[in-house]
Amino acid sequence: MNDKTFALKGICMYSKTQQVIEVMDGYVISADGICQGVYENIPKEFEGITVHDYTGKLIIPGLIDLHLHASQYPFRATGMDLELLEWLDTYTFPEESQYADIEYAKKAYSIFVNDFKNSPTTRACIFATIHKEATLLLMSLLEDTGMKTMVGKVNMDRNCPDYLKEESPEKSIEDTIEFINYARQNYKNTVPILTPRFIPTCSDDLMVSLGKLKEEYHLALHSHLSENKTEIDWVRNLCPDADSYTDAYERRGSFDQSGKTIMAHCVYLTKEEEDLLKRRNVFIAHCPDSNMNLASGIAPIRRYLKKGLNVGLGTDVAAGSFINLFHAMSSAIQSSKLYWRLVDQTDLPLTLEEVFYMGTKGGGAFFGNVGSFEKGFLMDAVILSDDNIQSSKTLTPKERLERIIYLGKDENVISKYVDGTRIEMNEFK
Amino acid sequence: MNDKTFALKGICMYSKTQQVIEVMDGYVISADGICQGVYENIPKEFEGITVHDYTGKLIIPGLIDLHLHASQYPFRATGMDLELLEWLDTYTFPEESQYADIEYAKKAYSIFVNDFKNSPTTRACIFATIHKEATLLLMSLLEDTGMKTMVGKVNMDRNCPDYLKEESPEKSIEDTIEFINYARQNYKNTVPILTPRFIPTCSDDLMVSLGKLKEEYHLALHSHLSENKTEIDWVRNLCPDADSYTDAYERRGSFDQSGKTIMAHCVYLTKEEEDLLKRRNVFIAHCPDSNMNLASGIAPIRRYLKKGLNVGLGTDVAAGSFINLFHAMSSAIQSSKLYWRLVDQTDLPLTLEEVFYMGTKGGGAFFGNVGSFEKGFLMDAVILSDDNIQSSKTLTPKERLERIIYLGKDENVISKYVDGTRIEMNEFK
Repeated sequence: MNDKTFALKGICMYSKTQQVIEVMDGYVISADGICQGVYENIPKEFEGITVHDYTGKLIIPGLIDLHLHASQYPFRATGMDLELLEWLDTYTFPEESQYADIEYAKKAYSIFVNDFKNSPTTRACIFATIHKEATLLLMSLLEDTGMKTMVGKVNMDRNCPDYLKEESPEKSIEDTIEFINYARQNYKNTVPILTPRFIPTCSDDLMVSLGKLKEEYHLALHSHLSENKTEIDWVRNLCPDADSYTDAYERRGSFDQSGKTIMAHCVYLTKEEEDLLKRRNVFIAHCPDSNMNLASGIAPIRRYLKKGLNVGLGTDVAAGSFINLFHAMSSAIQSSKLYWRLVDQTDLPLTLEEVFYMGTKGGGAFFGNVGSFEKGFLMDAVILSDDNIQSSKTLTPKERLERIIYLGKDENVISKYVDGTRIEMNEFK
Repeated sequence: MNDKTFALKGICMYSKTQQVIEVMDGYVISADGICQGVYENIPKEFEGITVHDYTGKLIIPGLIDLHLHASQYPFRATGMDLELLEWLDTYTFPEESQYADIEYAKKAYSIFVNDFKNSPTTRACIFATIHKEATLLLMSLLEDTGMKTMVGKVNMDRNCPDYLKEESPEKSIEDTIEFINYARQNYKNTVPILTPRFIPTCSDDLMVSLGKLKEEYHLALHSHLSENKTEIDWVRNLCPDADSYTDAYERRGSFDQSGKTIMAHCVYLTKEEEDLLKRRNVFIAHCPDSNMNLASGIAPIRRYLKKGLNVGLGTDVAAGSFINLFHAMSSAIQSSKLYWRLVDQTDLPLTLEEVFYMGTKGGGAFFGNVGSFEKGFLMDAVILSDDNIQSSKTLTPKERLERIIYLGKDENVISKYVDGTRIEMNEFK
């Protein structure tokens, strides 16, 4: 027995399938950081292990945020008056340029990491900026939390302001390799991921080189795809060789099989693009709050789920305002209802079960066996209290979970475990 | 000079027009509860008055919630899987039936009022249930807060479960008159408003009698209009005499000029219905969060504003999850963006200025000169701290306000004044 062998006692809830949330008032068992399942009573073989008693509280797998920009956190919930491309020029690029200053980066990233610790998220894929030092600083801060993250130094060498443009594809690759090597040597919880911003700001040379790097270094890759109609038209002009935006990534080697790929948004895919993403086992990060804020549209997520695509959720801070992934769950339901009402009634809106699945097991698959309390999954857990949400009604566990998802407050998170280790949250908890 | 004569010092912000938020770091002056305007320095004539010092904090007019159901607060943020009519049958009516039990009502309404005190709202129009005693109890609890509210005992005598159906139009009117008289004799801050649920659950006899009561007692009226397509079809069948849902209210006397009328939702109005609402000076309560949750659709609010209709905001708890009207503001922007993107690009999405206007001065007009710091307005003010939202950036007052609107936390409200009197908020403040 070790520190990672224990039981959590409480009302355990996790996705068995996309349609079913299992609920059991009992114990979820961790043996050396690996989940052994949920039981009404502690099984004989685990008698005597440490029990962390959260009787009456909800215990769920940690939430997985497949897409957010730590560097944009300082301007979250402001600058909501523009569409994507104007929003990048007006708010995003000026803010991201500040991370050339390591003192600014320290101040900004410390605030981000501090808040992030208190969120219900246990694992995340994070954009930083083009700046190698600042990105490594962010990784160092994240490393200390015990949370598991994939962090990317951004690549961009065209169609962006000079103050944020990498001087050449070669220099961008050189910095990226240094970043990868340093991160791999120094961090355990935080691993590097390739992060070309998106095709409009990355030259063909750069994209092709990153594709090769992906294979050579067995790296995952994280980018944006098909978020906004003007963006899609732009890519069509930039990539006359490609059949589609998705195909442009394919032809530049972003989807090879040596590592996994996340594409954020995917609002306007054609059937052929959907097929290609499925063939290449790409993960879609659905970011509904962002897609509303930037007037991008609504991704047809149930169609993707039916088709068997990998779909997880992203907060997409700062185009999304909330670092709390519960908010992405309720936004996903709301926007799917409007899609059903206003666009296409073929597929019904998303259910609570489905968004919970996407925010746990769906996105968790990007990290391996993550996002469930089934046997063999890595032991990530979040303990939720709803003492601060009073009601005159007696609620079922599922209603209590739904209420926490819709109200989306970090204050409901009273404890979290990642990979069998308890995360030290901020003092006000 | 009296208690209602004072200055609030801080960063004062209020809507001058639908397009302009005035900002001044200075003093908003109250003389006997009437706002005297905002000044950089205290004018000579007010020298020596008490100054409540909120330096650095944002001071805005109190928010106006034109539509919510206090009786539904216990199940807020749950039961989000149905459309309007099924939602009423499955969740709403069973919950509302419990208010026949005064002990239950006391427990439920106490929780509601407690939370409501801490919200940024200063004035609201509230649905209770059909139960006279429970409704008066709610009014008594609200009276003690000092907030200004209009509360309605609900009328419904058809097309609803027997356990919630009033036995006849006559009995419904008799109870309503008793309710009005008791409330008028006993409460000052909380006034009665006629509250037929909506045409489907109110017989023609009942509606016509309520129209007469409205005139005779000079009462305002509060109901629902054109929320959901199935509901609209139903009203077409129920009211063969009427040209439209709106016209059905008109023909039953709901819009007479003796008192004001609020109609919640108005998602699918025809041009003729818009004209009729304008002619009758009806207020529209836009409830975007609710309209998403019940998959109702998106009301074309900018069109209504351009046309000069009266539009305010409603949280519509519990079809809306949040008692905090800031959330209705951000939802209104988000859903208007999706309307623009998915339905009709004639009108641009709503701006921060416009939703702030609707949540203050727009809805405030239903209560008289309310919702601004211009001279002559009643002195309602909310003081906002954003100390709990850290940022590495220096933000303008408008950005700080935007951030509070999007993040929508009651914790940002540190103090509020209604009609020149400070409201005692809950202890945790």
